Amino acid sequence: MTDPDVSGGTAWRRIADEIAAAIARGEHATGDTLPAATALAERYGVHRHTVRQAFRHLAEQGLVTVSRGRGTQVSPRRVAYPLGRRVSMRANLGRLGLVGSSRMLSAAQVDGEAEICATLGLENGARLWRVEGLSLADGTPMGTGTHWLSVARFPDFDAAFRDGGASMTAALKAYGIADYVRLSTRLTAKLASGREAELLEIEPGAPVMVSVAVDALPDLTPIHLVSSVFAGERMEMVVEPFAE
Amino acid sequence: MTDPDVSGGTAWRRIADEIAAAIARGEHATGDTLPAATALAERYGVHRHTVRQAFRHLAEQGLVTVSRGRGTQVSPRRVAYPLGRRVSMRANLGRLGLVGSSRMLSAAQVDGEAEICATLGLENGARLWRVEGLSLADGTPMGTGTHWLSVARFPDFDAAFRDGGASMTAALKAYGIADYVRLSTRLTAKLASGREAELLEIEPGAPVMVSVAVDALPDLTPIHLVSSVFAGERMEMVVEPFAE
Repeated sequence: MTDPDVSGGTAWRRIADEIAAAIARGEHATGDTLPAATALAERYGVHRHTVRQAFRHLAEQGLVTVSRGRGTQVSPRRVAYPLGRRVSMRANLGRLGLVGSSRMLSAAQVDGEAEICATLGLENGARLWRVEGLSLADGTPMGTGTHWLSVARFPDFDAAFRDGGASMTAALKAYGIADYVRLSTRLTAKLASGREAELLEIEPGAPVMVSVAVDALPDLTPIHLVSSVFAGERMEMVVEPFAE
Repeated sequence: MTDPDVSGGTAWRRIADEIAAAIARGEHATGDTLPAATALAERYGVHRHTVRQAFRHLAEQGLVTVSRGRGTQVSPRRVAYPLGRRVSMRANLGRLGLVGSSRMLSAAQVDGEAEICATLGLENGARLWRVEGLSLADGTPMGTGTHWLSVARFPDFDAAFRDGGASMTAALKAYGIADYVRLSTRLTAKLASGREAELLEIEPGAPVMVSVAVDALPDLTPIHLVSSVFAGERMEMVVEPFAE
């Protein structure tokens, strides 16, 4: 059966595969500029448009970024974020040799929406903290999220979160919660809004992963809902059901 | 602390929250057209630009689609796809009351790339099937994926996959594999390429979830790698580490 996704053969695909393999082998480091399309076209004996199509394919996969003036550069590998029973952004970054940091962007008390209150086991309209934070790895923004927690259960949470360096783990410790677990994560994709793009230092309309996650006490009582966006070019979520 | 993400108050946010809550309560059904911005502006006592900002926020969240001429319509709820130890698109859709179907788009034998061969426990360059498929729910495209399997282990896989209605579960049964498990799923977000958009019947540049997943025999021997894109507006992945 023939491959239907190319006109005029699979030359661009073969070239893209070879470049991807070379990147995987470490022959091109992060930030390296690939040879120009004209040079590669000569090497492979194809038209430069074929090489450009291979570059576009690699860019779609997030392996390179193509920019006018700077050429085609090898992108940093995405930071892998395991979604297991325990999830901590900062601990995860630490395991990868990256320095995780966070900032609190805002904190407010609001009357909870029905769906969030139900998820947190609270009565409809219960008073909630709505706290916005930003997570960075080695100073690069990875994600920004809005956290929801009960005001009654977590009085002065704004201060606890700020004083804990905008780390959820540290903030919950201030309430005697030494351990918490991830009950659920719902993930989809959307385009970054203007504000999200500004916070994440990506282009407006760049692809982001949307995550709605619920954390719970070890007895599975939900305590925290966080709705986040993560830069698609920088992060990937990893689900390994047999890893724990 | 004040909320920094609005200029001139949180009126648009409050309106967006109220509309989102009404959608969640089922007061607006899928496909319903919301009242015009001018009408809502009058009801809430705000400028119509404020209502439009609320509409944009809801569109970003995937709750509505705003189109010229047809107004602001309530989007279908996303199909939830649980990423547990057993993953079957068709069985999952069946549980949701949707009819899952699939199509084989192409099948070819290729020399395997190093990374894919290593993941599948094969020697570098081993002969692989590269089989493209499309998954639909009630006739709407949900995702399209490229499957990789060993040619030696799965001779005539193209025929088995096609004869099994492009269902991986059915195709593997033809080789005596009655049960398989999901070892890992890696997820990120990107923009749909032209061909992906065409297959998924979405706009080029619309956001898609990218998934690279590895399936294995029950003894955890990997047999199948599938690289897919799913329409962000139609699908969400659900991870519940305590659900099984």
